[in-house]
Amino acid sequence: MPKVTLLINCKDKSGIIATVTNFFHNRKGNIIYIDQYVDTEKGIFFMRLENEFSTEYDIADLRVEFDEEIAETYNMNWKLFAEERILKMAVFVSKYDHCLYDILGRFKAGELNVEIPFILSNHKDLASIARAFDIPFYHVPVTKDNKAEAEAKQLELLKKFEVDFIVLARYMQIVSDQLISEFPNNIINIHHSFLPAFAGAKPYHSAYKRGVKIIGATCHYVTAELDAGPIIEQDITRISHSHSIKDLILKGRDLEKIVFSRGIKLHIQRKTMVFNNKTIIFT
Amino acid sequence: MPKVTLLINCKDKSGIIATVTNFFHNRKGNIIYIDQYVDTEKGIFFMRLENEFSTEYDIADLRVEFDEEIAETYNMNWKLFAEERILKMAVFVSKYDHCLYDILGRFKAGELNVEIPFILSNHKDLASIARAFDIPFYHVPVTKDNKAEAEAKQLELLKKFEVDFIVLARYMQIVSDQLISEFPNNIINIHHSFLPAFAGAKPYHSAYKRGVKIIGATCHYVTAELDAGPIIEQDITRISHSHSIKDLILKGRDLEKIVFSRGIKLHIQRKTMVFNNKTIIFT
Amino acid sequence: MPKVTLLINCKDKSGIIATVTNFFHNRKGNIIYIDQYVDTEKGIFFMRLENEFSTEYDIADLRVEFDEEIAETYNMNWKLFAEERILKMAVFVSKYDHCLYDILGRFKAGELNVEIPFILSNHKDLASIARAFDIPFYHVPVTKDNKAEAEAKQLELLKKFEVDFIVLARYMQIVSDQLISEFPNNIINIHHSFLPAFAGAKPYHSAYKRGVKIIGATCHYVTAELDAGPIIEQDITRISHSHSIKDLILKGRDLEKIVFSRGIKLHIQRKTMVFNNKTIIFT
Amino acid sequence: MPKVTLLINCKDKSGIIATVTNFFHNRKGNIIYIDQYVDTEKGIFFMRLENEFSTEYDIADLRVEFDEEIAETYNMNWKLFAEERILKMAVFVSKYDHCLYDILGRFKAGELNVEIPFILSNHKDLASIARAFDIPFYHVPVTKDNKAEAEAKQLELLKKFEVDFIVLARYMQIVSDQLISEFPNNIINIHHSFLPAFAGAKPYHSAYKRGVKIIGATCHYVTAELDAGPIIEQDITRISHSHSIKDLILKGRDLEKIVFSRGIKLHIQRKTMVFNNKTIIFT
Repeated sequence: MPKVTLLINCKDKSGIIATVTNFFHNRKGNIIYIDQYVDTEKGIFFMRLENEFSTEYDIADLRVEFDEEIAETYNMNWKLFAEERILKMAVFVSKYDHCLYDILGRFKAGELNVEIPFILSNHKDLASIARAFDIPFYHVPVTKDNKAEAEAKQLELLKKFEVDFIVLARYMQIVSDQLISEFPNNIINIHHSFLPAFAGAKPYHSAYKRGVKIIGATCHYVTAELDAGPIIEQDITRISHSHSIKDLILKGRDLEKIVFSRGIKLHIQRKTMVFNNKTIIFT
Repeated sequence: MPKVTLLINCKDKSGIIATVTNFFHNRKGNIIYIDQYVDTEKGIFFMRLENEFSTEYDIADLRVEFDEEIAETYNMNWKLFAEERILKMAVFVSKYDHCLYDILGRFKAGELNVEIPFILSNHKDLASIARAFDIPFYHVPVTKDNKAEAEAKQLELLKKFEVDFIVLARYMQIVSDQLISEFPNNIINIHHSFLPAFAGAKPYHSAYKRGVKIIGATCHYVTAELDAGPIIEQDITRISHSHSIKDLILKGRDLEKIVFSRGIKLHIQRKTMVFNNKTIIFT
Repeated sequence: MPKVTLLINCKDKSGIIATVTNFFHNRKGNIIYIDQYVDTEKGIFFMRLENEFSTEYDIADLRVEFDEEIAETYNMNWKLFAEERILKMAVFVSKYDHCLYDILGRFKAGELNVEIPFILSNHKDLASIARAFDIPFYHVPVTKDNKAEAEAKQLELLKKFEVDFIVLARYMQIVSDQLISEFPNNIINIHHSFLPAFAGAKPYHSAYKRGVKIIGATCHYVTAELDAGPIIEQDITRISHSHSIKDLILKGRDLEKIVFSRGIKLHIQRKTMVFNNKTIIFT
Repeated sequence: MPKVTLLINCKDKSGIIATVTNFFHNRKGNIIYIDQYVDTEKGIFFMRLENEFSTEYDIADLRVEFDEEIAETYNMNWKLFAEERILKMAVFVSKYDHCLYDILGRFKAGELNVEIPFILSNHKDLASIARAFDIPFYHVPVTKDNKAEAEAKQLELLKKFEVDFIVLARYMQIVSDQLISEFPNNIINIHHSFLPAFAGAKPYHSAYKRGVKIIGATCHYVTAELDAGPIIEQDITRISHSHSIKDLILKGRDLEKIVFSRGIKLHIQRKTMVFNNKTIIFT
């Protein structure tokens, strides 16, 4: 049966849930999932809802109707997705291969319900992996002198392939402000530390130096401020004094893969909303 | 503002959410929390909802109306709680004091929104703790020969004090079938293993013998079958070959306290439903 | 510098550590790692020691000398490894590919210091993966009628390639007693549950049915009794009522990969000893 | 049997282990535990060793002999403890009671092998807890104007009672440099965040604001730089967007108690060494 997913947030008011559920009920819909959360401090209402229709429907019409009947009244931020629409995900990499291998392995196993139109890298090293998985690979080198040009090339590719969101699988370049503003809350990074601890470069070295007993990884949306975007998912693993920096890097690889893939899946399933530089994660 | 919490389960059908949310909307209610789950395998719908009324309401009337207008139609299992009603929790103990200390410490700190009419034990050892916390203590010894009499005494106390639910804080006697049937899904036990591993007596000894690398604790509702009731919460901690049984017991104590208190809190907040010997835990 | 690793266990007695450390000191060795453990309940002493020699040495001579000077006196079980000797690891698989992909990815990345002479399977499904990683693949089907023949073929391959140990990467056949007795504590299995809970087939289905809040994976040495061998490593992940069996299987895959690879690494680094059906894990 | 524990660190050289183990062997000692670690980056050797003597020995003589025969040669930092010597632990608190309750509960249960000569606080609020556990309580208020006087009073009490180490059970004052220099690596603090994230005041508020998915607690030795001392132990717990600051504080309390008590136990068992502002934790 055709299914839609609705995400909304707005100023909290009485009656929103009843109004929205009636909207679908009146169209012979069956709500199969509803989850809501109120940020009582800021007075904001958030909701995620999945609805199955017993008959065909037109997503464009539905959007117009929802907007006119409900969204305008409540001054909502909202998105309505048709489930059959598969997102297009671009993968940016540099030289590290473990996150790329992991994503492609999961993609091939059917875990990630996306299309991957291309892999883009500022180095050529991982081209053979792209080839092995039959995915186009674009080499867009980035140097001090060609930044503007490289960004233009990136944007051109993203538009040409109608990419919905980008995952930075250990992409070691800072993403341009323009790219960020064209893909708001649609660029996902994996940072190899437990943010906000050890932001910036070489977090495993910093963790080793500080003598922490636990290391972490953080999957977050990219914003203009480095490593400071909304956190989607984090996890940790225990270490001890006996672990060298090399050990931390090895242990961290497993962590990065898992945290990254969890974050990507939440995004694909439209289970994330961003507000006030934080995420609401529907479960 | 007066608040009610509704828990329902019934055969899954279209329109339940809209119908229920309208019920509250029509009475000037404001739904501040809704969470729902469908067991697609069995076709069962579950929902937990919190509603605030802007004016006074009568809980008895509300129950009658909900029953007639909705519950009968959908053949629901349901409960409607007024938030101002504080649950009465009896604590059963034997000789181990760590879970008792932990519960009473949390109770005193305001973490557990209950009344504790009494502590009951088959031994006198912990009477002084009850005294220190100013809670009545009843010593009901249990022997092979006085089982029926002891059970009668227990039931008498539970009725006299209008107890809502019982927590077994390492109570080392098997609870009678009659008690279980009078308090269905209202007797909470902490078992010192990761069930279903190591059910029964001396789980730390069994864990040591088997050489596991992780030990656990399980908080569950008590049913007629020993250690086989619906699981509310579990957690684990890592161990190694170098830990003796005594070490496991010590490490396990911390685990038991935390898992037990989490389970009790979920119950107090009416965030648990039982179906098919499993729990649905609303978050 | 040439390095040896010594593993010993014997009845606990005074002076073992001094005696052993002197043995290496007298040969111009430098002990760079020592870890020891006493099972006080059984009175057994365990030790792992790494020693670097500043000059060349002959491992065969060293073994004879250690045996005569020390091991006989203390009636030790002991093994002395030269670090330059790379272990040969055979991989047995059936149809699931996630553990195989993970092992081969780590192997290729240099995480696993072994040779992999071949992959063996009772099905043909994963042959292409072996080919992609350039490792010989042997298809040895197992049916009710050809068991003896299949086992003979397995043993022939294992001998021909001088295999040191076998990893069962979700190999779905029961390994023969003969194979187990020819590779004692050298067959490593990954079981997709938190043993001893849910031994046997379909543990995720059993976990779902029981309604546990945590699932696990167990890496263990294979013994004649199914899923009852010495546990090398375990880990867990949290689940909830909302996870279907399919979700458990997906979540479990990540767990299986990590727990399996940790167990294999401990074995390769000779950090495991087995005694009394339990492992001592040196760190 | 009389037992001693030895902790050493020194520049790494060949033969240290044999030399030290012989020292005890020659005195009819039996080494029952040995653990060692080499910081290969800095070239430093660390060792912890427990030895049982079959006959009486004089700890003062042993120290002189060890110093002359071994420590001077290798230019070691070392400590030799007689097991029968019970450490004296002072507890500093302010207004929060959860860590104090937890420590005293464990103390009473025999988990912490120390004497507690007194509890000191800058507030009177927790005096009744001290009284309930029969431990002297000293109220030493700290204001802008009386700092020097308050510190003098603290030092006087610590000397009078021959205190070995101090635990800051959520003591909300900054400890003076003089106190730190008189108790180097002997003041243990619990910080309610996953350091180095959220150092300083109100870490739960900062964690909430940043939108992290995990909160932590850190037990560390106090040094002159705030929240930057050697980390003994850390642990974490998962949170979500739905947790308020109050929820974080509640969840954090359990974490603080456990991490703090683990750190204190490691210190009491002399399983910690500090080097280069990091801890080596022997297991």
